[in-house]
Amino acid sequence: MTTTTIFFGELFGTAILVLFGCGVVAAHVLNKSKAHGEGWILITFGWGFGVMAGAYFALPLSGGHINPAVTFGLAAANGDWSTVPVYVLGQMLGAIIGATLTWLVYLSQFKHSDGPFLGIFSTEPEVRSTGANFLTEFIATAALLFIVTATGQSEALALSGLGVLIVALGVVGIGMSLGAPTGYAINPARDLGPRIVHQLLPLKGKGGSDWSYSWIPVAGPLAGGLVGGLLGGWVYGLM
Amino acid sequence: MTTTTIFFGELFGTAILVLFGCGVVAAHVLNKSKAHGEGWILITFGWGFGVMAGAYFALPLSGGHINPAVTFGLAAANGDWSTVPVYVLGQMLGAIIGATLTWLVYLSQFKHSDGPFLGIFSTEPEVRSTGANFLTEFIATAALLFIVTATGQSEALALSGLGVLIVALGVVGIGMSLGAPTGYAINPARDLGPRIVHQLLPLKGKGGSDWSYSWIPVAGPLAGGLVGGLLGGWVYGLM
Amino acid sequence: MTTTTIFFGELFGTAILVLFGCGVVAAHVLNKSKAHGEGWILITFGWGFGVMAGAYFALPLSGGHINPAVTFGLAAANGDWSTVPVYVLGQMLGAIIGATLTWLVYLSQFKHSDGPFLGIFSTEPEVRSTGANFLTEFIATAALLFIVTATGQSEALALSGLGVLIVALGVVGIGMSLGAPTGYAINPARDLGPRIVHQLLPLKGKGGSDWSYSWIPVAGPLAGGLVGGLLGGWVYGLM
Amino acid sequence: MTTTTIFFGELFGTAILVLFGCGVVAAHVLNKSKAHGEGWILITFGWGFGVMAGAYFALPLSGGHINPAVTFGLAAANGDWSTVPVYVLGQMLGAIIGATLTWLVYLSQFKHSDGPFLGIFSTEPEVRSTGANFLTEFIATAALLFIVTATGQSEALALSGLGVLIVALGVVGIGMSLGAPTGYAINPARDLGPRIVHQLLPLKGKGGSDWSYSWIPVAGPLAGGLVGGLLGGWVYGLM
Repeated sequence: MTTTTIFFGELFGTAILVLFGCGVVAAHVLNKSKAHGEGWILITFGWGFGVMAGAYFALPLSGGHINPAVTFGLAAANGDWSTVPVYVLGQMLGAIIGATLTWLVYLSQFKHSDGPFLGIFSTEPEVRSTGANFLTEFIATAALLFIVTATGQSEALALSGLGVLIVALGVVGIGMSLGAPTGYAINPARDLGPRIVHQLLPLKGKGGSDWSYSWIPVAGPLAGGLVGGLLGGWVYGLM
Repeated sequence: MTTTTIFFGELFGTAILVLFGCGVVAAHVLNKSKAHGEGWILITFGWGFGVMAGAYFALPLSGGHINPAVTFGLAAANGDWSTVPVYVLGQMLGAIIGATLTWLVYLSQFKHSDGPFLGIFSTEPEVRSTGANFLTEFIATAALLFIVTATGQSEALALSGLGVLIVALGVVGIGMSLGAPTGYAINPARDLGPRIVHQLLPLKGKGGSDWSYSWIPVAGPLAGGLVGGLLGGWVYGLM
Repeated sequence: MTTTTIFFGELFGTAILVLFGCGVVAAHVLNKSKAHGEGWILITFGWGFGVMAGAYFALPLSGGHINPAVTFGLAAANGDWSTVPVYVLGQMLGAIIGATLTWLVYLSQFKHSDGPFLGIFSTEPEVRSTGANFLTEFIATAALLFIVTATGQSEALALSGLGVLIVALGVVGIGMSLGAPTGYAINPARDLGPRIVHQLLPLKGKGGSDWSYSWIPVAGPLAGGLVGGLLGGWVYGLM
Repeated sequence: MTTTTIFFGELFGTAILVLFGCGVVAAHVLNKSKAHGEGWILITFGWGFGVMAGAYFALPLSGGHINPAVTFGLAAANGDWSTVPVYVLGQMLGAIIGATLTWLVYLSQFKHSDGPFLGIFSTEPEVRSTGANFLTEFIATAALLFIVTATGQSEALALSGLGVLIVALGVVGIGMSLGAPTGYAINPARDLGPRIVHQLLPLKGKGGSDWSYSWIPVAGPLAGGLVGGLLGGWVYGLM
């Protein structure tokens, strides 16, 4: 892995992730959509298959993080932060591209729907409460890092190539089980990149981009990723 | 792989794909069906398992494209177009056979339902807009080719045989996330073959075959497949 | 594999299959069930995971047919019918045991529901039509044999143990795509065994066991299995 | 595997399992949840992915039982009970931690919902009947042990790392097919640990912890695990 492959791997992988993820929310939310109102099962599987597609694409290029919280958690566990900036740069650019592509895929649907549209791009909590929202994102992302650590240390999963699928299905599970209070960002790039796109796109009736909430789906996942990565590393260090 | 195995592999594989795919739409649309009105989750999983079944069948015979957009994307990436005609011939014949079999499976249901029936056979956009519809099919098929390219270059997935399952689940994801505006043809044979069958079958109240739209689910996927295949190949060429 | 392991493998495997399969229909149909009215997606996944559980259990003992149509299809393809009787005997006894266990699991639910209950045990077509019902079962079972043949000839799937999962997900797909007209027996033992149990159990208001229809979910699958097995074998013989 | 790795593996694994499992029920039950009222398909997949996440995490540390019924079943089959206490201790502590974490994830949702809340933590039968409830849990857990025994003896699944995924999907199937009468504890720690947490947490309107029922989801699974483990071991001993 070189700086170039890491950058493009994370950029393409995160773009695919966010295209699928924002796309499935658009499919549920917007009018003139064949999946209008399908609900949480559709949304959680759609996001999970986005993780699967993006991470398999990025895997040989960058290791397939496509999530700054994963990058932070693994950097903390391994004590090596040197490549973190290029990872995060690729992830952020990829998330911005992915959210823009989602808009293009649903061009006609946006025209036939009234806003606000922020929920298609970024997460919004059901109940606004700084402490509780942070805690939810923290625990959900720590759970993600446990899964990432577990699959990452398995020789059998590396040999069969099954590891990414397990993580992807784990993200479906996180969405189903832990995502309902805040919409499970569990990935700062997934939330911040599309929020920037929502701010910039000229969508009629799009509503505000809710920047006052925007730090929670960044800080919560980063903190959860760090603690999950360190804790997971500690447990496997017992072996 | 010989011309014979390619032809029969693609023919059988695409027939299975289209039988499952058109079948699950029939299950949702038609009266006197135990799955009547089940919705988009059923439809996307049904199509995905059709990809899985058809592509595993065709894999050792032809590589398991069962989609001209995949054939075009891989030909462009590899610079070898010599076998493209036999692939496409098998795919088109297979799609026609598969759609005919769907009609036979749902014989009684067609009799007890009023048309129009085109939506069971071919894709129809929710909002008719040449540019937007083309763009949706283009992006969705490019995403498919990223997944195909990613799994195709993985030795681990080849060894474990997991690759086709990943592509199939990726198609479930494409359907959930990107398929809601146009019905995601992402495969010219899947759309054109059944459209011909719809034109020819003597179904009461079947409605028109909408030939004016028919070029979009052919051209969009082919263009998206080409660009996705070339772009995916370029990224992996960086390694 | 000995006659003993084949017999017990098929008996246990088919019992597990039918326990899960009839169980998920009971979960949907009966009152006082936490899954009451969940519909076709629940039913098709439940049956598929029953295939998965039963076939993985039986795999090392008997090859994991748990379905006379599979046994017939493979016997026809291989030209060896010597072990067919012990397979079918184990399958029929297993199906009877599985359906009885389903009744025990849902003891309280049967008491709180009015019949008729045949639909929990055996298949019933939405539209009664000998030709169309036979054709549906024939095509659906031929599709199953294509999947079985495809996974069975793959060294990669044998090595990774993935083959049974692919068949199981294929059965989910068959249910979703081809199962809606008749309830997809695609397995004579799965239909006939529980029908016998329905006939014998002292359930209040259970209704008739519909023996006049019972030959179709036996003959259709056997014929489809034979043709699917032979055709699949023929195609792979081209390699 | 040492006593330390077994203890922490089971503790972390069971905590993850219960966090996901109780979490998905909370997502369905509580107000101000994005998954409110999604139903049984969500719940069964959420629990299954919890098994997947928890068991993959624990696998290299403890073998990934995360369930006293599995520990008992395997101990009975192998005739070695020496490590059972440390397994069960880790499982019980993990279940208590997991249920507490669920409460933290859904802090705001609990505040906006009226109780009773026992159903989020522990199982409750639809129809109260000692014999029938016990029988349901007994059969469902015996089925689990058949799946565990089948995957555990497969060299192919060990090599590819697929075994845990099969068990997890098997638990989805058990939930769908056999879980609807009692809520499928099939795991004494999963039921008893969260029940203790429900007893202790200061939740407004939480209702009683139903200790009179609590022995059934302990005794039923343990008995079913024992019989399933012994029976499974006996069948494979025929080979």
